[in-house]
Amino acid sequence: MTTVHSDDQLNESLAHIRRLLERHRLLDALAHRQEGPKKDLLESLQHRQNLADVHKRVNALHAADAAYVLEALPPDERQVVWEQLRPDLAGQAFVEVGEAVREWLAETTPPDTLATVLETLDPDDLRYVREWVTPDVFAEVARTLASADRQAVEDAAHYDEDDIGHYMTRDMIAVPDTYSIQHVLSDLRARGELPPQTDRLFVVDARNVLRAAIPLQALVLLEPSVPVLAAAITDVTTVDARSPISQAVTAFERYDLVSAPVVDDRGKLVGRLTVDAVMDMARTQADQRALAQAGLSRGEDLFASPWDSARNRWPWLGLNLVTAFIASRVIGQFEGAIRGLAALAALMPIVASIGGNTGNQTTALMIRALAGDQVRFSGVHRLLTKEIVVSLMNGSVWGVLVGLAAIALYSNLALGAVMAGAVILNLVVAALAGVAIPFALHRAGRDPAYGSSVLLTFVTDAMGFFLFLGLATIFLI
Amino acid sequence: MTTVHSDDQLNESLAHIRRLLERHRLLDALAHRQEGPKKDLLESLQHRQNLADVHKRVNALHAADAAYVLEALPPDERQVVWEQLRPDLAGQAFVEVGEAVREWLAETTPPDTLATVLETLDPDDLRYVREWVTPDVFAEVARTLASADRQAVEDAAHYDEDDIGHYMTRDMIAVPDTYSIQHVLSDLRARGELPPQTDRLFVVDARNVLRAAIPLQALVLLEPSVPVLAAAITDVTTVDARSPISQAVTAFERYDLVSAPVVDDRGKLVGRLTVDAVMDMARTQADQRALAQAGLSRGEDLFASPWDSARNRWPWLGLNLVTAFIASRVIGQFEGAIRGLAALAALMPIVASIGGNTGNQTTALMIRALAGDQVRFSGVHRLLTKEIVVSLMNGSVWGVLVGLAAIALYSNLALGAVMAGAVILNLVVAALAGVAIPFALHRAGRDPAYGSSVLLTFVTDAMGFFLFLGLATIFLI
Repeated sequence: MTTVHSDDQLNESLAHIRRLLERHRLLDALAHRQEGPKKDLLESLQHRQNLADVHKRVNALHAADAAYVLEALPPDERQVVWEQLRPDLAGQAFVEVGEAVREWLAETTPPDTLATVLETLDPDDLRYVREWVTPDVFAEVARTLASADRQAVEDAAHYDEDDIGHYMTRDMIAVPDTYSIQHVLSDLRARGELPPQTDRLFVVDARNVLRAAIPLQALVLLEPSVPVLAAAITDVTTVDARSPISQAVTAFERYDLVSAPVVDDRGKLVGRLTVDAVMDMARTQADQRALAQAGLSRGEDLFASPWDSARNRWPWLGLNLVTAFIASRVIGQFEGAIRGLAALAALMPIVASIGGNTGNQTTALMIRALAGDQVRFSGVHRLLTKEIVVSLMNGSVWGVLVGLAAIALYSNLALGAVMAGAVILNLVVAALAGVAIPFALHRAGRDPAYGSSVLLTFVTDAMGFFLFLGLATIFLI
Repeated sequence: MTTVHSDDQLNESLAHIRRLLERHRLLDALAHRQEGPKKDLLESLQHRQNLADVHKRVNALHAADAAYVLEALPPDERQVVWEQLRPDLAGQAFVEVGEAVREWLAETTPPDTLATVLETLDPDDLRYVREWVTPDVFAEVARTLASADRQAVEDAAHYDEDDIGHYMTRDMIAVPDTYSIQHVLSDLRARGELPPQTDRLFVVDARNVLRAAIPLQALVLLEPSVPVLAAAITDVTTVDARSPISQAVTAFERYDLVSAPVVDDRGKLVGRLTVDAVMDMARTQADQRALAQAGLSRGEDLFASPWDSARNRWPWLGLNLVTAFIASRVIGQFEGAIRGLAALAALMPIVASIGGNTGNQTTALMIRALAGDQVRFSGVHRLLTKEIVVSLMNGSVWGVLVGLAAIALYSNLALGAVMAGAVILNLVVAALAGVAIPFALHRAGRDPAYGSSVLLTFVTDAMGFFLFLGLATIFLI
């Protein structure tokens, strides 16, 4: 009988939990309102029965689904579910939830309870969530670890958050290069179970230097007497513990890896990176970029307090306000022209807006090319030339259209010509800035997805106003 | 000896190819310029030697790296590399390159050559690239397929491009539920090799209904006499061939899968989905969303003709121009007020801009919550309430700041008050639109990542101008 975790079944299960929680809240409210010992007893029984149902339901969930429930619930109900989770499931869910909710859980859970939950984690997961718990709680959890595991957690602290070493697991199987398949098989049978996402074992020499890898299928298919080195693949894609994780994401995507050995600078095997960790990381990167492009430094708990949410949005709004004021001062220089011809005020946002839009198109293509590293290979001057040609073509088409529309609206031929000229020039500015800004950020060692759009819009706004109002002053006023 | 495909080595190899290609171009140019039989011969020899070097280098690349080189090269050099690739490597590279470059390759390669290249592909890959080749070429390639493979390719045409069935492979191992481990092992040894990304075999009954899965490690660890059903895991996460691929992406991310059986609506095993296909898909989705948010319907070949590039950007620019004109007409209604107080023209973009920025923050959070399906679970009204509270808080802080700045600039107390009021109101508008627009798109069955930002900016621009100029007309003029 195959159990299918289809989305529908998960949703049905979630809806059930949701109903139980609503009933829980209702019973809670009733219990607080009514006195009288008899009613109280009845309700308390109902209450307990209801909580037992919640307990059963949530503990039947996969850890990732439990995490999803925790994220989707408002704080009061989230707390009920969190308290009902078995410690081991709670531990896994703590690893799986988003950062904002993890922070909330770490803050609201009593230290002793949190320690009990975290004690169920393996060293890799514990290391991963270490920064979210207080040193006291961490110390208490670390006491329960075997000394090798404690060492593993401590070692990992030497890696940056961006290093592959921070994301690798030490849970892997390495076999000496002197073994035969038979040796390996009996070792594995003694061990009983393989680590998750094990598609191959690693072969190391006496100094723990990685020499090769044996796919699991070789163990199934080959004669037991074959020496491992004869069965192993020596052309192994390795990753470096000190390299940025983004490099591993690229390698896994390109070479369709399930796992990769992590080596140090002397080629010694120090860990294993698995595709699930890489996929999580790729998703986190994509999410963070999407948020960053909208001006959010990090994700928000859906039910964060408005105060926390408001502050999360300030840095960007502050920056935006500064750039908007500068653009506003550009307009301020032309107040005389605007007083003379108020149509300028109505038309100038069009020039700025079309510049911002084309510039952001160029920027998005540049960011993609830079992320794929194709710009280094092909050279930025070719791209710049192309974008300028495109902007001149687009400028001619849209500039003339916009100019004709302005003439139709205001019956002013010169105004239309100025408008068309300003659009063409601002599109060229947009092409230049759209290539130069991400490229400059990239050269400065920063991810161009962060901040390119703000800077670009600033340039196209300010220049759009300047070009249009400047041309108008020269030719119309 | 472990060969390490580190990024540095890849880059070194690419730089070498690049140098060879430059030399090739140089020799080409010389050959065209100079006549004289003797020089000609010498150069033609050099030329051939150089091409042989290119041939050797590019055919030593992994297919994904060859694809990367093709994407990063301008058309003339791209063609040289493409012609030098072995047919099988060219076939894989054709599968791996981005859509824009695949289109270019399909258009520029002679039909016979393209057919020779595609004949090297397995049915899954062939199916995947089918839409890029002409029916003639496809028919020629299909003729070379075994009839079962041809059937597989034809069957796949019944799935939508968005269905899991479109991305699955039929290359998998299914064993009858009556087998013992011993049976399975001897079958596998007869077969010789397992399909890539095989972490488990599927167990089916006589009607081909999926009953369970056996992890590869069970084959390694268990006694050969054990019946497969005793060794197999019956709690298997399956995916439905007709479900959207995005559902599979979520399932692979949540449950850390390496492969999943694909079943039809009667539970019969029809294929297998692997983590590499899912990762590619997740990456493609993220890339397309990033491009769509900047107003590009699809990726561009870095070296596409300016004409093709310009047209790729038109739909969005056209839409942007329409919305910008409508916003401009809003301003147009207040030209009298602007003539009276030109400072209004300078300040109004600030109100519009801060509204657009906060609205886009809200939209980004909503898109994320909708993608994670958390909104269905928690209800949209809670989010709306929270965003409005946040907008009132942010509005008070930034509205007062902006108002004070306006007073400082123009020494006009009433102007500052109007400015502050307009900012607060526009932030509330932004919160409403920032929640409502993505939610409405989602309810309409569309991906809110596409188009939310345009619509939102339109609303906050038009309303920002209207609120500020309207309040100014009432209180200042």
